[in-house]
Amino acid sequence: MERIRTTEAAGHTGEVVLLQGWLHQFRALGRVNFLIVRDGWGLFQAVVDDPATLAELGRTGVESVIEVRGRVLAEPQAPGGVELRETRVVVLERVTEPPPIEVNKREVRAALDTFLDHAVIGLRHPKRRAILRLEAAMIAGFRAHLGGEGFTEINTPKILGTATEGGANVFTLNYFGRTAFLSQSPQLYKQMAVGFLERVFEVGPVFRAEPHATTRHLASYVSLDAEFGFIEDHTTVMAMLTGTISAMVAAARGCATDLALVGADVPEVPDSIPAIFFPDAQELLFARHGLDCRGEPDLAPEHERLLGAWAREEHGSDFLFVTGYPMAKRPFYTHPNPVDPRYANGFDLLFRGLELVTGGQRLHRHADYLAALAARGMSPEPFAEYLKAFRFGMPKHGGFAIGTERFLMQLLGLSNVRLAAMFPRDLQRLVP
Amino acid sequence: MERIRTTEAAGHTGEVVLLQGWLHQFRALGRVNFLIVRDGWGLFQAVVDDPATLAELGRTGVESVIEVRGRVLAEPQAPGGVELRETRVVVLERVTEPPPIEVNKREVRAALDTFLDHAVIGLRHPKRRAILRLEAAMIAGFRAHLGGEGFTEINTPKILGTATEGGANVFTLNYFGRTAFLSQSPQLYKQMAVGFLERVFEVGPVFRAEPHATTRHLASYVSLDAEFGFIEDHTTVMAMLTGTISAMVAAARGCATDLALVGADVPEVPDSIPAIFFPDAQELLFARHGLDCRGEPDLAPEHERLLGAWAREEHGSDFLFVTGYPMAKRPFYTHPNPVDPRYANGFDLLFRGLELVTGGQRLHRHADYLAALAARGMSPEPFAEYLKAFRFGMPKHGGFAIGTERFLMQLLGLSNVRLAAMFPRDLQRLVP
Repeated sequence: MERIRTTEAAGHTGEVVLLQGWLHQFRALGRVNFLIVRDGWGLFQAVVDDPATLAELGRTGVESVIEVRGRVLAEPQAPGGVELRETRVVVLERVTEPPPIEVNKREVRAALDTFLDHAVIGLRHPKRRAILRLEAAMIAGFRAHLGGEGFTEINTPKILGTATEGGANVFTLNYFGRTAFLSQSPQLYKQMAVGFLERVFEVGPVFRAEPHATTRHLASYVSLDAEFGFIEDHTTVMAMLTGTISAMVAAARGCATDLALVGADVPEVPDSIPAIFFPDAQELLFARHGLDCRGEPDLAPEHERLLGAWAREEHGSDFLFVTGYPMAKRPFYTHPNPVDPRYANGFDLLFRGLELVTGGQRLHRHADYLAALAARGMSPEPFAEYLKAFRFGMPKHGGFAIGTERFLMQLLGLSNVRLAAMFPRDLQRLVP
Repeated sequence: MERIRTTEAAGHTGEVVLLQGWLHQFRALGRVNFLIVRDGWGLFQAVVDDPATLAELGRTGVESVIEVRGRVLAEPQAPGGVELRETRVVVLERVTEPPPIEVNKREVRAALDTFLDHAVIGLRHPKRRAILRLEAAMIAGFRAHLGGEGFTEINTPKILGTATEGGANVFTLNYFGRTAFLSQSPQLYKQMAVGFLERVFEVGPVFRAEPHATTRHLASYVSLDAEFGFIEDHTTVMAMLTGTISAMVAAARGCATDLALVGADVPEVPDSIPAIFFPDAQELLFARHGLDCRGEPDLAPEHERLLGAWAREEHGSDFLFVTGYPMAKRPFYTHPNPVDPRYANGFDLLFRGLELVTGGQRLHRHADYLAALAARGMSPEPFAEYLKAFRFGMPKHGGFAIGTERFLMQLLGLSNVRLAAMFPRDLQRLVP
């Protein structure tokens, strides 16, 4: 008999079927005895009344690997309206020890660190693995949208000969006796790729040796990067990003079962996300909250939270673009606003008050790069190959980078970004 | 006027259109003058007869960024049967210096190292960027096939606390003052993930500090990994792999233009790929070629080439499974053949005589892991979290790993695997 998945069982009502999975729960209530089997996709309830099967289940701990045969019958009281009857169980791999994390309770009760220590088992909890499936769905939404817009997926180097994007927060490694660096972002490579593929995106790990111990930083995360040529300015990039975010949210919405498990409240993405100019945002914070950050070159997390609340109240939007950050703190490849070069042709996208995306227009002229590097006291030498792209004809271009785990955290209302990574890496954590 | 892509022009015959791209080539023949514009997707020919435009093009080098307006007209002599007339050109970014690699000749003439040094420009050559697009298509085929089979895409850590898969060929890095290691493969993580998602795959970089200077090794490559539970044995994995390879080849075939550019000969993937048992393969090499490698624990590259030729001749197949490698040289997680435990329940897939995929059934019982580690004199301690997965119920499972760049190399008949990576990394090469 061919195995079916738990999620397929309702389509086999009346039939005898074979399920395989883990013994998620067994409740021997005496008169009625319920076995819940968990496979890769869901849970399914089986009623057990055969004495031999009951005896076997009595000897078998949760998380044992089992095969379950029975007849699918309609039962209005059962989850999903169907359950298994005439149940027979074969134990394939017996577990007798209780697992370090209870994965069959409604909620994971372990503290964060305990959960992360035992994530190999803890992720078997339906609510926790749902996060991983939503991650996969949202990344698929990212890819599908940009693919439809003519973007090509690329794979850029993760080991670099020079720490080009900033020396301090980069991991160093021993590369056949030489010092090399782990990539903090595919920024320079995706720009180079615009020269040959014009529209590119990448889904891949980035590495940040930032000694942050916050709820929203990881030492390695999955960055969703896009870059494309022949833009008008940063507003072209914002429009592309809006469509991308919308597609990702729609992809999450398509995973209704997983969303319901996590209990997430998925926002509408406006066709046009509201935008506020950076100095105006500072004025707003002053006027509304008496917070005087005018003249400062960046927003603090608290400012972002307040702006997020304002966007929600004023525009009914969970998303807010902040445009035109001061050039002073922006990286050398940032394109200034041609009208007022104190400000960047760039943006951050806040989602529910947290910075989720950074993007903008980049410089595209060789001479502008040389000037920008010189103005920052940086040598052009380590950038020789990157600069070559601009020496030989580059169009106006721009792009953005989305932090996958942050997006998940905010979308699903997780308390910590570590819960959005399968096996997170931070200042302390290198296992599992 | 909205810009159209070069590949869309034929659909606008009779209309005035706007193209944007790079000045790929300008041939002033006097009576007829041809401008070829290249954008992210293709090339398009424009006939120039306007004197001002001709003068402007005379001042403008190849790779300049241009805007081209004109009327699309049918022209049987033109590539694709259409060309642009009434052409007007605006130069957006003027290049005057000749590029370090000529990207508008039929073939790239540079030696491999020169090409790789200047890949930032060299990849603008239509034949070279076609490889990158075929890579993207094949990876998309991999994802689509496994997604359809109920697999979830995962992202596993690339920085590890212990060098679990073999100490010698691993890159070490400084992780906030501690020594850490770059992942050589997601093997252990994808197995753990079977415990919670049952069917998983990953597309991501792996890092091999192997001091090989061959035409088929890279220090970092894109590994296509899959792993799934509730298999019968390695033959279940071989069947899943066959479907996956078939989907990837079909995806490449879908990129007809790029394939034609590269001039690749795409094979049929048999519904059932021929398989030969390892000791039989050795006997065959002896009988057919007088090569006596009987008793050796592995095949040499020359043996693989000869077996590939045999599969082609005998079975008309470019693919050949070699099954049942001796356990002696296989990693500790390898599941032995229960009938004859000298041999593994595993396989290599050879493609045109080169090892392309390794896969098989893994151990799934905790006690078997402890025994396998002990037999190899390995401590279970660094594997504590991994082993936890097996302590708490794991089904029979297996999987495979495909080397993306190798697949491309073999499929496209490239002379060196470095040509299948955008910016390859090897013993010497860390830039671009």
